[in-house]
Amino acid sequence: DGDVDAGAQKAASCAACHGAQGKSAVPLYPSLAGQHAPYLLQALQAYKKGNRSGGQAEVMKAFVAGLSDKDMEDLAAYYGSLKP
Amino acid sequence: DGDVDAGAQKAASCAACHGAQGKSAVPLYPSLAGQHAPYLLQALQAYKKGNRSGGQAEVMKAFVAGLSDKDMEDLAAYYGSLKP
Repeated sequence: DGDVDAGAQKAASCAACHGAQGKSAVPLYPSLAGQHAPYLLQALQAYKKGNRSGGQAEVMKAFVAGLSDKDMEDLAAYYGSLKP
Repeated sequence: DGDVDAGAQKAASCAACHGAQGKSAVPLYPSLAGQHAPYLLQALQAYKKGNRSGGQAEVMKAFVAGLSDKDMEDLAAYYGSLKP
C-alpha cells in the first residue's frame, strides 16, 4: 500500500487543479478527497498506460509521465485518506 | 443542466457498482456521491466516445452505450447532488 505522508509531499503539483485538500474548485476537475485509493491508483495507471485520452486526460498524462509506481501508490493513499 | 430526479430514476443500473447512495463498497469502483456534475458528465462522455479503455472502462462502455446525452446529464446531476 501507499504511504500517506509521502503522498502528501508529492501532492503539491496536484493541488493546483484538485484543490489543497483534494476538493477541486473547478467543476471539470474531479475532487479526489476520500475516493477509494485502489480506484485512484487504477485511474493514474490508466493515464500512464494511455488508456485515457482526449480533453483533460492529455493534461493528466503529462503529470503522470513523471511519476513512479511508488509515487502513484502514495498519492492514491494520500487522497484516499482525506475527508470527502 | 441535468434533472436530479430523472437521474435518480436512471441510476438503478449504476447502483450495483457505485452503491445505493453513490458510495461504492468496492474499492476498484469509484464513489460518485458529491462529485462535480460537469466532471461526471465529462467522464461518461469519455466512455461513450471510447476515450477510456482497458479494465473497468470496458464495463462502463457497455453501460454508457445505451445512454442518451440527456440520460448522462441527469445521472451526472443526480450523483453530484448526493452527500459525499
